[in-house]
Amino acid sequence: MYIPTYDDMLTAHARIKPYIHRTPVRTSDFLNELTGAQLFFKCENFQEPGAFKVRGASNAVFGLDDAQAKMGVATHSSGNHASCLSYAANRRGIPCNVVMPSTAPQAKKDTVRRYGGQITECEPSTTSREETFAKVQAATGGNFVHPYNDPRVIAGQGTCAKEFIEQADGLDVVMAPIGGGGMISGTCLTLSNLAPEVQIIAAEPEQANDAYRSFKAGYIIADDAPKTIADGLLVPLKDLTWHFVSKHVTDILTASEEDIIHAMKLTWKHLRIVMEASSAVPLATILKNKDRFAGKRVGIIITGGNVDLDILPWLK
Amino acid sequence: MYIPTYDDMLTAHARIKPYIHRTPVRTSDFLNELTGAQLFFKCENFQEPGAFKVRGASNAVFGLDDAQAKMGVATHSSGNHASCLSYAANRRGIPCNVVMPSTAPQAKKDTVRRYGGQITECEPSTTSREETFAKVQAATGGNFVHPYNDPRVIAGQGTCAKEFIEQADGLDVVMAPIGGGGMISGTCLTLSNLAPEVQIIAAEPEQANDAYRSFKAGYIIADDAPKTIADGLLVPLKDLTWHFVSKHVTDILTASEEDIIHAMKLTWKHLRIVMEASSAVPLATILKNKDRFAGKRVGIIITGGNVDLDILPWLK
Repeated sequence: MYIPTYDDMLTAHARIKPYIHRTPVRTSDFLNELTGAQLFFKCENFQEPGAFKVRGASNAVFGLDDAQAKMGVATHSSGNHASCLSYAANRRGIPCNVVMPSTAPQAKKDTVRRYGGQITECEPSTTSREETFAKVQAATGGNFVHPYNDPRVIAGQGTCAKEFIEQADGLDVVMAPIGGGGMISGTCLTLSNLAPEVQIIAAEPEQANDAYRSFKAGYIIADDAPKTIADGLLVPLKDLTWHFVSKHVTDILTASEEDIIHAMKLTWKHLRIVMEASSAVPLATILKNKDRFAGKRVGIIITGGNVDLDILPWLK
Repeated sequence: MYIPTYDDMLTAHARIKPYIHRTPVRTSDFLNELTGAQLFFKCENFQEPGAFKVRGASNAVFGLDDAQAKMGVATHSSGNHASCLSYAANRRGIPCNVVMPSTAPQAKKDTVRRYGGQITECEPSTTSREETFAKVQAATGGNFVHPYNDPRVIAGQGTCAKEFIEQADGLDVVMAPIGGGGMISGTCLTLSNLAPEVQIIAAEPEQANDAYRSFKAGYIIADDAPKTIADGLLVPLKDLTWHFVSKHVTDILTASEEDIIHAMKLTWKHLRIVMEASSAVPLATILKNKDRFAGKRVGIIITGGNVDLDILPWLK
């Protein structure tokens, strides 16, 4: 198992610069007053394909040598990694095959297809996803870019925390949602080198709290097919992300479905951004744990903004 | 009638700096490909009270001397000017009375009240609004800050175009929606001095096209109580805004309700921002007039983002 280094992250940042936005950091007096903390939101939903995952995907795609690149890339993903890998492959002009659960939001499937990605659908479980992928990969021979358990991907995701530290002074805490742990691992990689005094707190839906239970138990616990509105956070930790999570994460906090939807609507209303339910989990946990964050400068990574605008969770 | 000058705009910009955001300019490859133009979106919906009108309102409020300020401010507004004047008055710690149509979106009424503004409701017509306001102003004695026909307000709105020109190089056109003409007049004030080569094109709903008809006729035509989803654009031009519109605007284009809703949803989906229907009118007119904008660098002012998230027009 190759553990990506701080230099890998710096190399990634130089490599991917033409394909990513240096996304803005936004604040809201209203949300500061509501939480009692000073919140800074890094808007990765503003990346062209709508998610931070463009960072890791672009690092993997543009790091391939020409011979590898010709064979294209392949992956399985609940959505945003698929869109972002398709985007990066499209920018390089190489094929991209993706396995997606049949239940993935239509908006995410549309984005993959818009960038020329080829979708093969599977059942919405980790088992089915991995089985189906093995078949697709055998048939196409593309370079496998795992959505998170891949050193190239983690080095790419780590570039977000580097920008964040440059954009927002004196953060006490950086928070991100946790699914497979790619963004959190990249954040650990960067901050443990660049700003080791900053706490890293992950946020997870109660209904898909395998990372929380893993963190408390001290070993990886994986659920098959959890259900939550935060559809980007269904996947389990793997060895590489567990390495970073177990070593550098301060804590993992959880929130209910109702809390997540409330925080999502609050953010849409007061930051006036379109973001996914997954991205609302950190704010949901802050609102549940106000004492812990009172007076702190808290950076929150808004991970993605690919939403079915016809199916908003507070209108169900 | 005092016509605000370029120096008034510069003074305004220095005065209001602590109370406004220098809002980001965003782009979308998808929307560029769709329109054939290069679009730059200045996100005034990201102002703390959710609209560009915080610029003019703050200039008026913070330009008052102490004796005037003690009496507070008063206005009538279909929404965003009311919220923004309340915000500015709140920041200065002075009273704010506002007359709003009973039909104004709940989100806008909530924002006014959150900032401590006192609301008096009127019927949704220009006549009722002005009559009700006369009574309120007589009772309170506050300094009248007209939502647009006020040199302090126009000088304040003009600060947006100054930032826009600094943030986006080589714009061929700047577009904004037109209601009473405050933002367009401020844009005219700034660009006619700073970048007279840039075309200024206003966009208006077909169902509230009084500015369009005025522009074609050569004199102000006012409708009483027009109806459109773009609820920020119901009010007519007045003498001061007519001065700027008739002198500096290149053209006024219109769009149907259906076109506006389509452009609104497109922007939410691809720029991932929450913005009002009024802010979608420029993109709606570009999509109807692609030849005219092909290959051009077009700046669009996203005017506001106070939306009832429970009533989205494409879900009706």
